[in-house]
Amino acid sequence: MSEIKVNPAILSGFMELLPEDQVRFDRLKEIIEGEFRTYGFWPLDTPAIERCEVLFSKGGGETAKQVYRIDPEAHSVEQALRFDLTVPLARYVALHSSELAFPFRRYQIAKVYRGERSQKGRYREFYQCDIDIIGRDRLSVDNDAEIASVIYRVFKRIGITGVTFCINNRRLLNGFFRYLQIEDTESVLRAIDKRDKIGDEGVAKILAELGLSEDVSEEIFGFLSPRGSNDRTFAVLRGLADQIRCCGAEGPESESLRVYEEGVDELERVYRRMQLFGVPEENIRIDLSITRGLDYYTGTVFETFLNGYESVGSVCSGGRYDDLASNFTKEHLPGIGLSIGLTRLFYQLDAAGLLPEDEEYLKAVVLPMSADDTDAAVAAVNALRDAGIRSQIYLEGGKVKKKFGYADRVKAAFAVMIGESERESGTASVKNLRTGEQESVALRDLAEFILAR
Amino acid sequence: MSEIKVNPAILSGFMELLPEDQVRFDRLKEIIEGEFRTYGFWPLDTPAIERCEVLFSKGGGETAKQVYRIDPEAHSVEQALRFDLTVPLARYVALHSSELAFPFRRYQIAKVYRGERSQKGRYREFYQCDIDIIGRDRLSVDNDAEIASVIYRVFKRIGITGVTFCINNRRLLNGFFRYLQIEDTESVLRAIDKRDKIGDEGVAKILAELGLSEDVSEEIFGFLSPRGSNDRTFAVLRGLADQIRCCGAEGPESESLRVYEEGVDELERVYRRMQLFGVPEENIRIDLSITRGLDYYTGTVFETFLNGYESVGSVCSGGRYDDLASNFTKEHLPGIGLSIGLTRLFYQLDAAGLLPEDEEYLKAVVLPMSADDTDAAVAAVNALRDAGIRSQIYLEGGKVKKKFGYADRVKAAFAVMIGESERESGTASVKNLRTGEQESVALRDLAEFILAR
Repeated sequence: MSEIKVNPAILSGFMELLPEDQVRFDRLKEIIEGEFRTYGFWPLDTPAIERCEVLFSKGGGETAKQVYRIDPEAHSVEQALRFDLTVPLARYVALHSSELAFPFRRYQIAKVYRGERSQKGRYREFYQCDIDIIGRDRLSVDNDAEIASVIYRVFKRIGITGVTFCINNRRLLNGFFRYLQIEDTESVLRAIDKRDKIGDEGVAKILAELGLSEDVSEEIFGFLSPRGSNDRTFAVLRGLADQIRCCGAEGPESESLRVYEEGVDELERVYRRMQLFGVPEENIRIDLSITRGLDYYTGTVFETFLNGYESVGSVCSGGRYDDLASNFTKEHLPGIGLSIGLTRLFYQLDAAGLLPEDEEYLKAVVLPMSADDTDAAVAAVNALRDAGIRSQIYLEGGKVKKKFGYADRVKAAFAVMIGESERESGTASVKNLRTGEQESVALRDLAEFILAR
Repeated sequence: MSEIKVNPAILSGFMELLPEDQVRFDRLKEIIEGEFRTYGFWPLDTPAIERCEVLFSKGGGETAKQVYRIDPEAHSVEQALRFDLTVPLARYVALHSSELAFPFRRYQIAKVYRGERSQKGRYREFYQCDIDIIGRDRLSVDNDAEIASVIYRVFKRIGITGVTFCINNRRLLNGFFRYLQIEDTESVLRAIDKRDKIGDEGVAKILAELGLSEDVSEEIFGFLSPRGSNDRTFAVLRGLADQIRCCGAEGPESESLRVYEEGVDELERVYRRMQLFGVPEENIRIDLSITRGLDYYTGTVFETFLNGYESVGSVCSGGRYDDLASNFTKEHLPGIGLSIGLTRLFYQLDAAGLLPEDEEYLKAVVLPMSADDTDAAVAAVNALRDAGIRSQIYLEGGKVKKKFGYADRVKAAFAVMIGESERESGTASVKNLRTGEQESVALRDLAEFILAR
């Protein structure tokens, strides 16, 4: 063995947790996974490494720069770590479509990799929790409402009901922009998406660069501005349609009106249905400025904010896409999906003190007082484990104080002591490590005693 | 969108499952994880990418050739995907030792990566399920017995009790080899480890190459050969010690005798304690030919075979190491650990028909008969989900036959139909899709009805 030690540091932008925090992280993950399953989403696990051809099938761009490529010297096929779970889903559905039942509902909770510049709140390896519903040829917009409601349930389970869904519809925006005779609607959508980061002035600057007049720009800002209640917003949206119609929309104008009204209809339907699926009205806000940056969204888009913690940004985002896997298959596969950035969410909830209450991980540590007590102590821990009680036996020698110190250190709920007198009487001395109370319990009742707490 | 489609294939040596198989895979994983937790092992999740300096801290060798390196062009620090979970554990414990309670018990279930030549039963990405107990300075050998017993419980939970633990002790072998005046005991151990693959003749050839005489070689084969019962094996092992002692062992011989007897004592203790921890005697075989190839094992070593399926090889292997993290820290950290190759195990159990019985993943699919029934159907599925019943609503239009076809396709246990008459009477028609039986159930009793099945 060399005398020079290797530094055991991890790479910058990566994270790992101490055991107690890992338990809290896993608990959050389990809540999310539990609700995904209750909603009938099926688990999916795809390879972390994909062919570059697959990963960049929609073109490279910013993503290609960030991707973790596998050393090309060593492999004949160009390959890299996935940067999201949507591209692997598209590939999976295209590859297996003949074997899947549509609508296909899947969840995937897995790590993705992005070689971003390291900074606070940005991770190079992080968990995404995705759910998607994929139709073949068509998919009811009611699914858009259902999928958002899952997230309400997730946060309710965590203990957070102060969550606001900001929903919008791309079709509505596209119809309106076309009515304004804007051709490059994608660029306008992307500009508006940056509003939180660069402010109205920044957006106005981009719009001017895109060749939009100040009048048009003002009309856009006016359109995006909040209108008070959701009902008021819908009234304004409907009013605008009537206004266009009155002016006698013709040709391209009537087409943009049609798209616009379809968008308003969808948005209102999703809004109503979300309530039917259990999201209270006060947790939903029609927000016309939500656009989502990604090109592939075509209808519903939404972001989710924790009330009072809006500054941390959206904790769950998603939307509707018309055609998931057009790069891989001729089949028409519309879908609705959303994603939670779990790693970031964990740190945000932790910092805000919003994580679910701690329970102890270990129920009991069995402490044989001397080597002679090992047999009886093993019998005791066997009985606890048979009853499904998470428990451990301390098998090292040493002083009693050290043994109790260990039980304290691992934050067990109970220390179960077995010494000579306990052995003779077929009992254990059970100490509640929260209250300090100690009781003598017959060994045959031990599991029941601990379960009853 | 380009007209030329990208092939949605995955890389060779990687795997992904169809949804139903994924559910079966996850069930197996959950059983393993559940038992790991019941035994009080703490979860751990380390980065999939590590610095090469860490991964190769024990030297490169065969492993370095197989590793998936990240493109060195793009990163200033050499990095690669982990090839096992033991090196990351060693790094983790060295990095965080001041914050951990020792003995530190952790489990990790995660993917590892090896760029092996693709062949049947070999995966380039696969799950390992590891448990380890790490002591600081010392760790009782009783932990070796406990850790093996976890695996017995895992297989029992899967429904397999025909499992044989072949256990041995490296110290015992080392003592014996030194008594035979063999200096390079590591090479002899590695040769014996290949016995299953290359046969006795192959091993004999290597031993000759190592410079061992035919007499010594024969003595080794004699020593390794089975002796019938475990008690008989221990009697032979003790007898050999007496024989050496009678011949008047002195100097190096008395040292090799000491090491040998320590090994026999440890092996017998682990054997007895395993039974105390619940592994029946008939499931344990003292097998002196088990050596494990890895250099770092120093005491207990074991492999696990499924009775009647010995040809698939060991399904779980492990052993004792004196010093886990000597490359990273001056602290002395002895430990005992084991690993299940889950991906391979899944396919092996599946092929042998030994996977746990299928249950349906989805309990219910709610089918609104027409658009007018959607509100009532959503209320029904909300109630099911509130009761924790895994269920789904079919939100697409279409013919009744198509709706039932979907419920069949996703193998739900029940189809819950809501049409006009059900709506009027506040009921649902619940069809058991296994038996074909159909019943009318009041909506308020729906969850209870399905739970009662």
